[in-house]
Amino acid sequence: MKEPEIYSPREECGIFGVYGHPEAANLVFLGLYALQHRGQEGAGICSSQGDLYLEKGMGLVSEIFNDPKVLKSLPGTIAIGHNRYSTAGGSFLKNVQPIMANFSLGSIALAHNGNLTNADALRRLLEREGAIFQTNSDSEVILHLIANSRENTCINKLVDALSIIKGAYSLLILRNKEMIAIRDPFGVRPLSLGTLNGAYVVSSETCAFDLIGATYIRDIEPGEILIINENGLDSYRPFEVNKKAQCVFEFIYFSRPDSNIFGDLNVSLLRKRFGRQLAIESYVDADMVIPVPDSGVSSTLGFSDQSCIPFEFGLIRNHYVGRTFIEPKNNIRHFGVKVKLNPISKILKGKRVVVVDDSIVRGTTSKKIVKMIREIGNAKEVHMRISSPSTISPCFYGIDTPTRNELIASTHREDEIRKYITADSLAYLSLEGLRSTLPNPDDFCYACFDGVYPIEFQKAACSSKMLELTVV
Amino acid sequence: MKEPEIYSPREECGIFGVYGHPEAANLVFLGLYALQHRGQEGAGICSSQGDLYLEKGMGLVSEIFNDPKVLKSLPGTIAIGHNRYSTAGGSFLKNVQPIMANFSLGSIALAHNGNLTNADALRRLLEREGAIFQTNSDSEVILHLIANSRENTCINKLVDALSIIKGAYSLLILRNKEMIAIRDPFGVRPLSLGTLNGAYVVSSETCAFDLIGATYIRDIEPGEILIINENGLDSYRPFEVNKKAQCVFEFIYFSRPDSNIFGDLNVSLLRKRFGRQLAIESYVDADMVIPVPDSGVSSTLGFSDQSCIPFEFGLIRNHYVGRTFIEPKNNIRHFGVKVKLNPISKILKGKRVVVVDDSIVRGTTSKKIVKMIREIGNAKEVHMRISSPSTISPCFYGIDTPTRNELIASTHREDEIRKYITADSLAYLSLEGLRSTLPNPDDFCYACFDGVYPIEFQKAACSSKMLELTVV
Amino acid sequence: MKEPEIYSPREECGIFGVYGHPEAANLVFLGLYALQHRGQEGAGICSSQGDLYLEKGMGLVSEIFNDPKVLKSLPGTIAIGHNRYSTAGGSFLKNVQPIMANFSLGSIALAHNGNLTNADALRRLLEREGAIFQTNSDSEVILHLIANSRENTCINKLVDALSIIKGAYSLLILRNKEMIAIRDPFGVRPLSLGTLNGAYVVSSETCAFDLIGATYIRDIEPGEILIINENGLDSYRPFEVNKKAQCVFEFIYFSRPDSNIFGDLNVSLLRKRFGRQLAIESYVDADMVIPVPDSGVSSTLGFSDQSCIPFEFGLIRNHYVGRTFIEPKNNIRHFGVKVKLNPISKILKGKRVVVVDDSIVRGTTSKKIVKMIREIGNAKEVHMRISSPSTISPCFYGIDTPTRNELIASTHREDEIRKYITADSLAYLSLEGLRSTLPNPDDFCYACFDGVYPIEFQKAACSSKMLELTVV
Amino acid sequence: MKEPEIYSPREECGIFGVYGHPEAANLVFLGLYALQHRGQEGAGICSSQGDLYLEKGMGLVSEIFNDPKVLKSLPGTIAIGHNRYSTAGGSFLKNVQPIMANFSLGSIALAHNGNLTNADALRRLLEREGAIFQTNSDSEVILHLIANSRENTCINKLVDALSIIKGAYSLLILRNKEMIAIRDPFGVRPLSLGTLNGAYVVSSETCAFDLIGATYIRDIEPGEILIINENGLDSYRPFEVNKKAQCVFEFIYFSRPDSNIFGDLNVSLLRKRFGRQLAIESYVDADMVIPVPDSGVSSTLGFSDQSCIPFEFGLIRNHYVGRTFIEPKNNIRHFGVKVKLNPISKILKGKRVVVVDDSIVRGTTSKKIVKMIREIGNAKEVHMRISSPSTISPCFYGIDTPTRNELIASTHREDEIRKYITADSLAYLSLEGLRSTLPNPDDFCYACFDGVYPIEFQKAACSSKMLELTVV
Repeated sequence: MKEPEIYSPREECGIFGVYGHPEAANLVFLGLYALQHRGQEGAGICSSQGDLYLEKGMGLVSEIFNDPKVLKSLPGTIAIGHNRYSTAGGSFLKNVQPIMANFSLGSIALAHNGNLTNADALRRLLEREGAIFQTNSDSEVILHLIANSRENTCINKLVDALSIIKGAYSLLILRNKEMIAIRDPFGVRPLSLGTLNGAYVVSSETCAFDLIGATYIRDIEPGEILIINENGLDSYRPFEVNKKAQCVFEFIYFSRPDSNIFGDLNVSLLRKRFGRQLAIESYVDADMVIPVPDSGVSSTLGFSDQSCIPFEFGLIRNHYVGRTFIEPKNNIRHFGVKVKLNPISKILKGKRVVVVDDSIVRGTTSKKIVKMIREIGNAKEVHMRISSPSTISPCFYGIDTPTRNELIASTHREDEIRKYITADSLAYLSLEGLRSTLPNPDDFCYACFDGVYPIEFQKAACSSKMLELTVV
Repeated sequence: MKEPEIYSPREECGIFGVYGHPEAANLVFLGLYALQHRGQEGAGICSSQGDLYLEKGMGLVSEIFNDPKVLKSLPGTIAIGHNRYSTAGGSFLKNVQPIMANFSLGSIALAHNGNLTNADALRRLLEREGAIFQTNSDSEVILHLIANSRENTCINKLVDALSIIKGAYSLLILRNKEMIAIRDPFGVRPLSLGTLNGAYVVSSETCAFDLIGATYIRDIEPGEILIINENGLDSYRPFEVNKKAQCVFEFIYFSRPDSNIFGDLNVSLLRKRFGRQLAIESYVDADMVIPVPDSGVSSTLGFSDQSCIPFEFGLIRNHYVGRTFIEPKNNIRHFGVKVKLNPISKILKGKRVVVVDDSIVRGTTSKKIVKMIREIGNAKEVHMRISSPSTISPCFYGIDTPTRNELIASTHREDEIRKYITADSLAYLSLEGLRSTLPNPDDFCYACFDGVYPIEFQKAACSSKMLELTVV
Repeated sequence: MKEPEIYSPREECGIFGVYGHPEAANLVFLGLYALQHRGQEGAGICSSQGDLYLEKGMGLVSEIFNDPKVLKSLPGTIAIGHNRYSTAGGSFLKNVQPIMANFSLGSIALAHNGNLTNADALRRLLEREGAIFQTNSDSEVILHLIANSRENTCINKLVDALSIIKGAYSLLILRNKEMIAIRDPFGVRPLSLGTLNGAYVVSSETCAFDLIGATYIRDIEPGEILIINENGLDSYRPFEVNKKAQCVFEFIYFSRPDSNIFGDLNVSLLRKRFGRQLAIESYVDADMVIPVPDSGVSSTLGFSDQSCIPFEFGLIRNHYVGRTFIEPKNNIRHFGVKVKLNPISKILKGKRVVVVDDSIVRGTTSKKIVKMIREIGNAKEVHMRISSPSTISPCFYGIDTPTRNELIASTHREDEIRKYITADSLAYLSLEGLRSTLPNPDDFCYACFDGVYPIEFQKAACSSKMLELTVV
Repeated sequence: MKEPEIYSPREECGIFGVYGHPEAANLVFLGLYALQHRGQEGAGICSSQGDLYLEKGMGLVSEIFNDPKVLKSLPGTIAIGHNRYSTAGGSFLKNVQPIMANFSLGSIALAHNGNLTNADALRRLLEREGAIFQTNSDSEVILHLIANSRENTCINKLVDALSIIKGAYSLLILRNKEMIAIRDPFGVRPLSLGTLNGAYVVSSETCAFDLIGATYIRDIEPGEILIINENGLDSYRPFEVNKKAQCVFEFIYFSRPDSNIFGDLNVSLLRKRFGRQLAIESYVDADMVIPVPDSGVSSTLGFSDQSCIPFEFGLIRNHYVGRTFIEPKNNIRHFGVKVKLNPISKILKGKRVVVVDDSIVRGTTSKKIVKMIREIGNAKEVHMRISSPSTISPCFYGIDTPTRNELIASTHREDEIRKYITADSLAYLSLEGLRSTLPNPDDFCYACFDGVYPIEFQKAACSSKMLELTVV
């Protein structure tokens, strides 16, 4: 299968919804706050009290909803929210979700985590039919398809629209008096259902349940449409689910260590297993093993446990880096990773150091880290260990990876990479090793490591035929 | 000695200065950025190009100097900066430093880390002499005393003013063509001198040197006045230095782990020693030892090393809490520590857990942490270990501690505290244990642990006599 | 004909466009600035350099485009802009124009002055066809109709869309490489074409031409579609024009006195004629005639000339009232017209005063003015003269009038109104008198004075039949 | 007497105070709002409820106090406020008044309208004595002198300080429980006392009394110190008053036409007299007389009345110019007066036009106006008439005039000026003519017209002797 040439900006995001609580918007605020790591570019909350109310902004959740008046302007007992990931390109308020529109079903709001693979083709077809678009996001295509459906009921319009889109999508939809949670048939992105004092809550990750004191019930299943309204829960499974393709990168890097996802699997425990397996596969004699904080910490602990090489904090992270750091221009530029990380020479000096990181993408950051440990830290040897297989293929399902050519592992051999990053040795976790740590290895997507894409892309020459049959 | 009844708001701050670099303000920006942990309420930079230029604001360094135009409006090769700590009370832009004034010496700017113990008395005396005040800060008193001095030279005016003030002060002063670095005779707060490409840099902590690539030369000595101008370094030591009283709390909590302070001692290595000593003193049989992140991490590693109890990350910290988190009011309030920390039940469930934290102040946070580990984490036993002695006395030299009555250890026995925080056991590092980990234990201030205050307070009935002799 | 029960918020706005000038956006900024009186709620500019660039905001033109960077971010030689009127209800950035959308024709931007009478019905029909709406404005309906058209060329799509809408519309449309100016077949709102150094400019009023030094060419004709592109001007007149219905209120109140509109008629000269005619019809013996500034000034001069009663400035206007004046709540509230106008007692005391205003809507303002002249000004007699006929019917074509019941003249006789406003006498300009001052009286709409609406409203039960035949 | 070489930026400002009203800050807000024409750069309000509360900002009063929370944060029954004039040079928040300081009398706030002539010399002396300065304003000198006085009571300290300063000052001072109103011995700037429901109000102009419904009592007398506290009014007149020197320019240009100042003289009536006298002195045969709005309107009416030449509005003013208009750079710059004024060709074409303006300063604006009336307006003849004598000397008492060399009338003869501004004829009101219109002509300052400065300047070589005797 050929990769698409053009694809929309990746969207790694967090979504959170509440049904049936008198402080729905307040809870969504807290939920988004716990999911802040999934996106820091912007956030929004839409609540319903018959009418829909929407507030959104650029920046962190705590900044956008800093003024108590903003949350007070979101009445009602149902609400959904969305954290948007900061992509490299232009970022605009209009792309911040939930996105809202008025049409025959009335007002509707939608929050989407994931990435569609046929959004561009569908957009062109919809435009041919007379649709006008306000944003650049995939998610607006979904709204148009729902609005365009000739079906009469809401659920049928939804099924109609979802049967056309392809790709990864965990969705929350808010209408007048109901909230709808949807996960694509491959279950690429996580989505969990919980309960709090009789209310229902839905979250990308369970760490948000912990914060508000909600209890985890179960995952929204791949391919499930769960309607929550005054009649309780109503579950539809209109699509055949042949094969799950849950994103293994959620474990490796993206999700919070205290979350349990994809069938209640704890992220930090899995990371520790990755580290143990990595030590088994690529032990090296050294004085200490240090993590690249914060994501490498759990796997480093696992590596240390397995290898009996002492764990140390040799790199300190400045947690105030924030969204807004702009390097002063001129001569003293290009601080890169130095504004985030600082090695402690008093710990590292003269030592043989194993450094554990979660992944190597372009290789530039790893190169800077090795250099920093050697030059500022005065380490004697630097051995890089990666707690995932080498990343050779881009993700089209919602993780922000660069194009194939920019992935150092797709164009260079391991020894070339080692040389480039100037490490004394380099080793990745093997794909088999990774699979061996998972309880149900066939239920995951490893496309970024093996190039096998479980969900097809829209062909460039996609005939409008199929679409017209369904849509118009 | 009686404690003062009224004292000004504490000021834990960071200061940074550059002399002789074409991008002085840019470097100060980066320095303040690395010192952000010392104060997040506001920050300012003052540069000199003959005239002085000042920019300051509320919030994080990266926010205030976000717009490149702001840094560009700070020309010249000399600059000083200041990070202000967020105190509980009212915070106003006018109190953000550097503070600046015009008087007979011309324009002068001052950045102060520390706290004067006779500021209020001096303020009353100066007002009696006709002075008018613009801020509530101690630091303005210093400016007035310099302006009031009848001495003729700048250095003599400085000595005149410093001989009157009492307390803790690390100072940076910027004039037309020189920068002056000063540390009080007890050396309470740290202040280090470094060099970068021929320029001189001065910083509260060395982590800021690492970021800009500067090399550490030596500490500014207790009682030293170091003038840096076109003639190079000129050091004055007009005050007798009988006894150092360097703040031990800088090691325990306040400084960054990658900084070397008070004679090149590394903070994280000392913390690890505290943890080892703590394990020696108060070992308990358990399944794991977990830190309260981030400050407890190094001491927990030491505890684990010494005790051979496995180190785990059982509490996850949300690093997006930020300065601006405001809890939504109403029923779902009082989240307290939950917005910052979350226990991982999959790690803690059914386990006997040792939790290492750096200190207990009021006890309320510790109580919430223990409760959280037990209720959300489902731990079987929770043993609290504190990597410092019990805090029984407030600090008057610049650390933000509550009044004596609010310090739980000043009013309760250890077993009462254990009961209050609902821990299965509780132990502090002993004062002797703490001293034993330090290379030169007599050079530190332990007032918060033993109530012995090395620097006297201004008597309430302070006669203006002494002052008038010197000042008028 | 029945009045519509529900109608969208009125939109009195100003539009300005430039084709073929290297500083198109700068000129549009200046044009909007000259048209600021037509709308102060918000403004926007869209420019084209192949791609479209849009900047908009709430507030005055000079505030929104205060930062030179904003205008610099609008490149290209074609640009259109829009000033939005501040309606009483909720005002949102999303309703500020130009509105922009992407569809089969590519990106398109639209600025609209006027009000559609069948927008609600069309909106419901479009929603039934699958359209989704982002704003509450009439103008989005026009975009959808263009996008929905099955015609192939841009001009045919436009004709298709315009043949469906009813009401008042002066439009500017910006595409890739052309600007299109449109005026509805009744010519309700003004729109003029001018030229500047080879470039074409289009403006709601000619006062904007004066500011930038452009020369007036001619009006855009009622029913004309004027396409301006690299081939020059291309004029289409696809609609039959039976009867003009130019808004006479543009002369009475809305347009600037220095503008020439509706076939080069000067606004201030007409107002002076209104005042003369008013003096002929309703002379009263008095010591002075004073205007309600600023709109009443020209007609007062005419009244004074004709009646030989001396003109005086007895009411002074505070020109700093601005958009943002918020009365402090509590006891000292309800300042109403006092924050805008102040009578000069030294001029008015003991005098018989004729006050000339342009219109009476609800009567509350007139009542306050009369009271103020009598109580603060100490006038002996107050005679109110209105330079237009009594306003008995609401406007549905773009002037912001209240509902019929709120119009005092629709529910009260003239003597009742006189009593209500506590004037010694009251007289309006007669409708015949008004018509007699106009060179071509049949070409104007007087609906607000006589209730005769020249453009039909959409029937409530409008069958979708007609629409479907045309649209789908 | 020699003019000072260096002088501080002029300060034309408005001040307003309230004593004894439960909504003191709200009333001051409204008062400042009515005085907005006296200064648009910034404004501030300080209120007292035992403690002092201060809020200030850059911009218009209605913008700064737009958020109701700001006014609510100003409690108490006493309050003073200040509007600052927008000077050409740098404008900074720190220079916005009231300025506040803490010293031996407690907290004190001061609002100053006027300009001191010996501020620079006093500043240097105070700095020599050890004072430190925070602002560039004259007014801070007054605070220092009060704080420095060795007298014991507040009133004596005040007299002490005022006996040293020279120049123009109308002052409002706010302390704990009293408000003090002061006018310099020459009475240069106006200051009036009024009453509202038992409260006392003090204002630069009476138009502010009208807005809040207060009643005028009397002027604060030249040289009077009026203390208002719980004991009522207490008036001190410690200074000999030989000669009044009230600023005649307040009538000509600066005050609002609806204000009565300097002994209850109405501004607009005086302006009308100026116009009549101007017509007597320099009649010219013409078709119409038009004002340069807004300040020229009353004098134009007087000119028309006297000359029987018809009054017309031939120039229209755009009232939205505002503080923030920034001309777009590049080719289309230098709009100058065109963004404010537009001539109506349909009125002016082919006519002989008399234009009345209040003054000519540099001549550049007059030149543009004449050019505009001729070129855009197509007038046949343009006769400029100025309702004041020619401005040949700068003001050092608080009106913002340029240096002598920039005043066209100080370096050019009247016929040269006529030629420069390209008018067909030019005439000024004669100084005798101006005096003849005033009831008490010897009580005014005409320095800008005749160069006779009633208040002396500080000699450059001022010995500190005199000061030291008094101050220290």
